[in-house]
Amino acid sequence: MKAYFGDLSFSTKKKLEIVDVTSNVENVVKKSGVTNGFVNIWVPHATAAITVNENDRDLWEDILQTFERLVPLNANYQHNLKYSWSSAEQNAHAHIISCLVKPNVTVPLKNGKVHLGTWQSILFVELDGPRTRTVNLQVIGE
Amino acid sequence: MKAYFGDLSFSTKKKLEIVDVTSNVENVVKKSGVTNGFVNIWVPHATAAITVNENDRDLWEDILQTFERLVPLNANYQHNLKYSWSSAEQNAHAHIISCLVKPNVTVPLKNGKVHLGTWQSILFVELDGPRTRTVNLQVIGE
Amino acid sequence: MKAYFGDLSFSTKKKLEIVDVTSNVENVVKKSGVTNGFVNIWVPHATAAITVNENDRDLWEDILQTFERLVPLNANYQHNLKYSWSSAEQNAHAHIISCLVKPNVTVPLKNGKVHLGTWQSILFVELDGPRTRTVNLQVIGE
Repeated sequence: MKAYFGDLSFSTKKKLEIVDVTSNVENVVKKSGVTNGFVNIWVPHATAAITVNENDRDLWEDILQTFERLVPLNANYQHNLKYSWSSAEQNAHAHIISCLVKPNVTVPLKNGKVHLGTWQSILFVELDGPRTRTVNLQVIGE
Repeated sequence: MKAYFGDLSFSTKKKLEIVDVTSNVENVVKKSGVTNGFVNIWVPHATAAITVNENDRDLWEDILQTFERLVPLNANYQHNLKYSWSSAEQNAHAHIISCLVKPNVTVPLKNGKVHLGTWQSILFVELDGPRTRTVNLQVIGE
Repeated sequence: MKAYFGDLSFSTKKKLEIVDVTSNVENVVKKSGVTNGFVNIWVPHATAAITVNENDRDLWEDILQTFERLVPLNANYQHNLKYSWSSAEQNAHAHIISCLVKPNVTVPLKNGKVHLGTWQSILFVELDGPRTRTVNLQVIGE
């Protein structure tokens, strides 16, 4: 059993945005040579997250609007008040949504394929963009 | 270290429903012969999810009602409007809740047992039933 | 590849509370001798959870207040009504938030380090304290 590390790097363009990284993950898995095992996907940021769902831009708007409705960008957040002099730190909403959606998903690999369902894509969730972002991949198996 | 794959398959009966799959997971783990390691549980659907909590039908109603209160079945979802001709596609709520609860949980195995706490069960969350559903299990260890 | 088990144990002091367990996790990883692989963090409780975010007490207040706003401590929960004679069981809110945030996170280990981003700490989320709590760690790799 071996462990292979690989990183993705990309830029986001909006405050809230979903980026489909499925094909990038598949490329790293192919390079790893691992055919059976799993890939652990890790977002090393506290204002972004990773999830899994359909590749549908209209749905993505529904998802992001729901996140924003549940955790508004502007509210009396103590984090934002403490850093009221810094526009870059007005991002408590992003930290809170990141706590709910979380930075990790562990996807099975079977017979050389990332074992996703028909309607599943691996979705990076930007919550405080635009920024340059990294995703760490760890492929473990045989 | 070995990797063993196994699937669960079952039918849900309601629109929103929780199904306790703990004993099914334990059976697959037993078959695998792995005693120390972990089982990665994967739901290959974009309108369902997996979580962990108590086996209590009253609590399950509270959980599902809360999900529905936070992400209503009927709202101005762009996904639903795009597919307004299809009653099967009026399911943006299910995709959004699936993005929050997510399709994966990685449970430790220790001394031949799925290492859950006293009040923990593995719960499949149906968000757009009734449907036939699959859960993919991957048991890795020794 | 080896598997090492270790537990954390600590007491929480409030009803809702965040506890940073990063250094405790790092100590167990050091003891394990594993330098490349991952640590699977498991909370064996149905009224607590684990997440990852910044070590900032003001932000933690924002996070907990948001959780409480979305899933109030007092509401017509069937779980609470069923156990209306027991003050200890008035905790449906804790079960529901635990279902959303979930009990597990799988963190990569690289070159002997827990591979967290600059602003990431491993955060235990108490939702029904004060209590004595356990976190199970499983370090797998080489």
